[in-house]
Amino acid sequence: MPIKVQTIIDALRSSVPPIPDTVDVLMAGRPDAEVTGIAVSFMPTQQVIEQAAAAGANLLITHEPLSYNHRHDEQLIGNDPVFAQKLQLIDESGIAIFRYHDYCHRKQPDIIMTGLLSALEWESRLSEMLPIAAILELSPMTVAEVAAHVKQKLGMPFLRITGDLSTPVSRAGILVGYRGGASTAIPFMRDHNLDLLIVGEGPEWETPEYIRDAAHQGRTKALLTFGHAESEEPGMRALSEELKLRYPEVPVEFFPIQPIFRIV
Amino acid sequence: MPIKVQTIIDALRSSVPPIPDTVDVLMAGRPDAEVTGIAVSFMPTQQVIEQAAAAGANLLITHEPLSYNHRHDEQLIGNDPVFAQKLQLIDESGIAIFRYHDYCHRKQPDIIMTGLLSALEWESRLSEMLPIAAILELSPMTVAEVAAHVKQKLGMPFLRITGDLSTPVSRAGILVGYRGGASTAIPFMRDHNLDLLIVGEGPEWETPEYIRDAAHQGRTKALLTFGHAESEEPGMRALSEELKLRYPEVPVEFFPIQPIFRIV
Repeated sequence: MPIKVQTIIDALRSSVPPIPDTVDVLMAGRPDAEVTGIAVSFMPTQQVIEQAAAAGANLLITHEPLSYNHRHDEQLIGNDPVFAQKLQLIDESGIAIFRYHDYCHRKQPDIIMTGLLSALEWESRLSEMLPIAAILELSPMTVAEVAAHVKQKLGMPFLRITGDLSTPVSRAGILVGYRGGASTAIPFMRDHNLDLLIVGEGPEWETPEYIRDAAHQGRTKALLTFGHAESEEPGMRALSEELKLRYPEVPVEFFPIQPIFRIV
Repeated sequence: MPIKVQTIIDALRSSVPPIPDTVDVLMAGRPDAEVTGIAVSFMPTQQVIEQAAAAGANLLITHEPLSYNHRHDEQLIGNDPVFAQKLQLIDESGIAIFRYHDYCHRKQPDIIMTGLLSALEWESRLSEMLPIAAILELSPMTVAEVAAHVKQKLGMPFLRITGDLSTPVSRAGILVGYRGGASTAIPFMRDHNLDLLIVGEGPEWETPEYIRDAAHQGRTKALLTFGHAESEEPGMRALSEELKLRYPEVPVEFFPIQPIFRIV
C-alpha cells in the first residue's frame, strides 16, 4: 500500500498528545504525495536538499527549520535572494520537507538524547534521564579525556572548553541544542551537583561565565560546548535507523552536515 | 574635590536621554562612596573583581552583568554557592560595580564600536556608521586574510569562520555583542549588499546557516564569529582611556579577560 507524506507525519506525531502551536509542520510539499524515498538530516540546507533530491528522496525530515529562524518569518526572508533560490530548488525538486522538533523532544525518552548517548557509547553511564537532560556517572576522567572521547566518538574536528582541562569530573549532565543558557543550565548543574556540563550551545556571557567563576573559585566545574548541530545530529541519524525498520518498503537515507564553523 | 561613585555614573549617563528600565545600574556598592581608583573590564568575573580590588580600585565599571544573565534574576542565583562566594568577595572588598551597557550602546557613535575599529586599525575603512553596526569598505581581501588581520590586531588565539576561506570580500559589516542573530544580521547583510559579516555571537542555526546556504549557492558571502567578549572588550578598553583623561586625579586601570572558550 502506498505511504503518503501525511501518514509518516501522523506516525511521528502519534506518540505524544497534540502540541499546540508546534513548529513541526510540513515546510514544503504536499501531504497527499506518495513517499518514494525518505531523507533525514539535522538541517535542510541547500546542499542537503540537493543531495536528498539527487538520491531520489521525495520526503526530507529535518530537526531544524528551512528559513534560518525558529519560526518562519516572512519579514525576515520574504524578499531574500538566498531563500528564494532555496525555494526554487525545492519547487523544482518537488521534495516535501517536514520538521520533526517539538514532537521529537516531547516523546520520552527523546531520541535526540538517546541517539547521542548511543553515538557516545555512554548508555551504560546513564544515571538519570530527565525530560530535557541526561545525567551520567563517568569513571573519574579529566576534562581533556572527556573531550578526546567525545571528539573521537562523534568524529568532531574541535570542541570548545570552559574551565580547566585537568579538572577530574565524574558527574556530567548533557543538555542538547540551545539548552545551554543560564536559566536551564545553571539550576541543572547546581541541583544535580554536576562537575561537567556538556551542551549544544548557549549565550557566551551566561553559563560559560558561571563556569569560569566556579573554576576560578577552585570548584571542579567545567563546560564542554560541542555545537548545536553536533549535539542533535546523532539523534536524527538514530531516527533514520528507526524509519528504516518502520518502513522497510521505502529507501531511507541519512545526510550529515559539515560543522558550521571552521576554526582558524 | 572628591569624586563620588554617583558622579561618575551621572557623567556616563549624561550624553543620552534617560533610558527606562535600563540594566545600567549599580550592581554592588554605595553611590555616595568616594572613588579612589577606577577599574574597567568587559565582565565582572571573580578574577577581575579580585584583581581590581588588589589594584586599589573601589569602582569597577563593566559592560556585562555580575549574575550570568542580562537581567539579575534571584530565582537563578539566589541560593547559588558560586554566586554567594562572589558576593562575599564583593562585600569584603567593598568595591562598587556599575554596569555600562545601554547608555554606552545608545550614545552615538558607540564607543564599543569605535574602540573596536580603532583596535582593528580599520577607522579609515569605515564607509557608514549605523546606530547598531558599522559598514567597511576593505581593499578586496580573502576571508582568510581578514581572519588573520583580526586575530593579529586583537591578539586572539582563534576565530570561527562560516563560508569559504578563499572568498574575496570587500564590503564588510560589523555587529558587536549578541547582534549576530538572524533578525538583525540577515536584513543587515542583504540591505547593505555585504560580502562579509563580522559578529560577536548569535544562535548557530540562524545566521551561520544562511551564510552556509549563500556560500553553497556560489555567492561571495562569509561570516566571521569572533566571540561576544572579543567584540566588545576593545570598546571597554577605549572607555578606560577616556576615563583617564576625564579624571586625571584618579587612577584608572583596564582589566582584560581571557577567552571564554579554549579550542581542543
